[in-house]
Amino acid sequence: MLEDHVRTGAYFDAITNPLNAPCFAGKVVLDVGAGSGILALFAARAGARKVYAVEATPMARHARALVEANGFGDVVEVIQGTVESVTLPEKVDVIVSEWMGYLLVRESMLDSVLAARDAWLKPGGSLWPSHARLWLAPARSHLAAARSAEFAASMAGWGGFQGEVDARYGVDVSALAPAFRAEQRLYYQETSAWADVSPSDLLGPPACIAEFDLGTVTKAELEAPLRGAFRLPLEAEEGAGAGAGGGDKQPPASLCVDAFVGWFDVTFAGSPAAPAPHEVVLTTAPDEGGATHWGQQVFPLSPPVRGAPGDALAGAITITRRSDNHRLMSVGLEWGVEGGSALAKAAGGVRKAVFQVE
Amino acid sequence: MLEDHVRTGAYFDAITNPLNAPCFAGKVVLDVGAGSGILALFAARAGARKVYAVEATPMARHARALVEANGFGDVVEVIQGTVESVTLPEKVDVIVSEWMGYLLVRESMLDSVLAARDAWLKPGGSLWPSHARLWLAPARSHLAAARSAEFAASMAGWGGFQGEVDARYGVDVSALAPAFRAEQRLYYQETSAWADVSPSDLLGPPACIAEFDLGTVTKAELEAPLRGAFRLPLEAEEGAGAGAGGGDKQPPASLCVDAFVGWFDVTFAGSPAAPAPHEVVLTTAPDEGGATHWGQQVFPLSPPVRGAPGDALAGAITITRRSDNHRLMSVGLEWGVEGGSALAKAAGGVRKAVFQVE
Repeated sequence: MLEDHVRTGAYFDAITNPLNAPCFAGKVVLDVGAGSGILALFAARAGARKVYAVEATPMARHARALVEANGFGDVVEVIQGTVESVTLPEKVDVIVSEWMGYLLVRESMLDSVLAARDAWLKPGGSLWPSHARLWLAPARSHLAAARSAEFAASMAGWGGFQGEVDARYGVDVSALAPAFRAEQRLYYQETSAWADVSPSDLLGPPACIAEFDLGTVTKAELEAPLRGAFRLPLEAEEGAGAGAGGGDKQPPASLCVDAFVGWFDVTFAGSPAAPAPHEVVLTTAPDEGGATHWGQQVFPLSPPVRGAPGDALAGAITITRRSDNHRLMSVGLEWGVEGGSALAKAAGGVRKAVFQVE
Repeated sequence: MLEDHVRTGAYFDAITNPLNAPCFAGKVVLDVGAGSGILALFAARAGARKVYAVEATPMARHARALVEANGFGDVVEVIQGTVESVTLPEKVDVIVSEWMGYLLVRESMLDSVLAARDAWLKPGGSLWPSHARLWLAPARSHLAAARSAEFAASMAGWGGFQGEVDARYGVDVSALAPAFRAEQRLYYQETSAWADVSPSDLLGPPACIAEFDLGTVTKAELEAPLRGAFRLPLEAEEGAGAGAGGGDKQPPASLCVDAFVGWFDVTFAGSPAAPAPHEVVLTTAPDEGGATHWGQQVFPLSPPVRGAPGDALAGAITITRRSDNHRLMSVGLEWGVEGGSALAKAAGGVRKAVFQVE
């Protein structure tokens, strides 16, 4: 995580800012999935009495070296093992962890953080981060058009392939066409994509579709499908519709939404019993100034949706863990255009799609 | 496998060529890892009395549809399961299988083919293919230089990173430098690469480093490290050293070998008791006319080796299954320059490297 300075910087600020010293000075801290041990080091620098840095992989050896080299070998104890299996000599005041995956929960370690919380956190203790939110916004991404074109090219390629196999081997493979088509659709049109979205590609403000208090959310709540409704007003970007020669800026009469964009943020607020005086938010929202490694997830819409500024995309999202791999997930979306414009009236009913987040 | 016409064409020729009809007409055939069922169809078309097409994945459903659509539903029986676990109603005369992985044995299904042979092949029965060979040649690939440059850039990046982490967070990460360096070396210099090598990049003829008779090789022989010695004469390519204005073509005084290139071929020769009248070889050697999907594996040498035409690279290769994943492997190479040239004399002793084939 060290190369991503938005990420590491947020943890650094939250943990070592002098305003938050009361949250760490003299406390016992558990770092879940410690990796290189950098968060454990931050906690030690913030005055922790003891830090248990639990890391399942052989990376634990490097964490130990890093801690020693920085003079905190007496404060930080690196333990190689899973947090579900380790036994600590005491309960802890604070849990720090960098557990977030793409779209927050993909391949995330949150299950392990909650297991650690339930097993080792003292009543009133705090988690860093303490809260997480998921966001969704309408966007123009070009990805949908590219994906549609690639899908069409792939299906055209199949046609040629079918003729070639017949000519070369006398085998009729048309029976496989539906399966091939389904596979290509899954790949090109029903799978979300990592992207570093520009804020100027958003076609309206985001909506918060889910919010977690990590101090209280249960494992059962996380395992159940997550459902959220949204209403996303469409807004013209600044300067859109302006003529080449300048003049009055007119909002465009039509906005073409060809993707939903999803991202998350986490907040370091401490706990009700031990609130952070200096609250920090780590956001993975679209940002001109440099994205985090998480980027955003783009859900391409084929065909795109058209609406006018002032209309809104209203719909719902369902995030489900995949039965074949509970660390991956599928995202169901449904949406329709609401509003008074002619485009909204022409948009027809609710559309649906299910995406794999890979 | 259908899109690779070198591959499918070789199987088609071997199985359906009328000269080989005695090998299939009226016979019972087992297709191991049938995939789409195309080889089973070829065998049925060649006159097999019965074909058992065993496929472990849900692809079996598509194989069934393909077989039905092509009118061989009464000959080909598609069975979903592993060949190690299925029970056939009879022994078979012939096993067909497309089991080969990169450099022949990476992620290959050969273990399953041998298990099927030992369980279900009648004495004197034949495997298609029946033999396999591994080849190695010296080459100029440019990959080694690119890999060296990338490695150097990555290590330079580490230097900057180390300073930045110190400046931002007051953490000294120099203790992690050796581990980072080892990881980058593994990635850039100790891992082979897939490539579609041009024949003109070979700097001499290949040597056969291993040969398998699939009718007799044992599982134990396959699981043991495979060791082979080689002597690779260096030859100047045609036209090398020619002046821009034409004139006499002079071989270059120095050849710079910056890679070993490995590939395989398989032969369809039937068995001693049932030889194929029309023998077919499927080669994955460098070919201007179009590579197979297997391409070749390139082992970059850093630094390169220099020799003169007439010198030779002499050495040994050891291919070992990886203990952490027996379907992957590591390739140990050692080499030295032999010959009378000044370059050979200056080349120094034997060099060694171990590569992961990923």
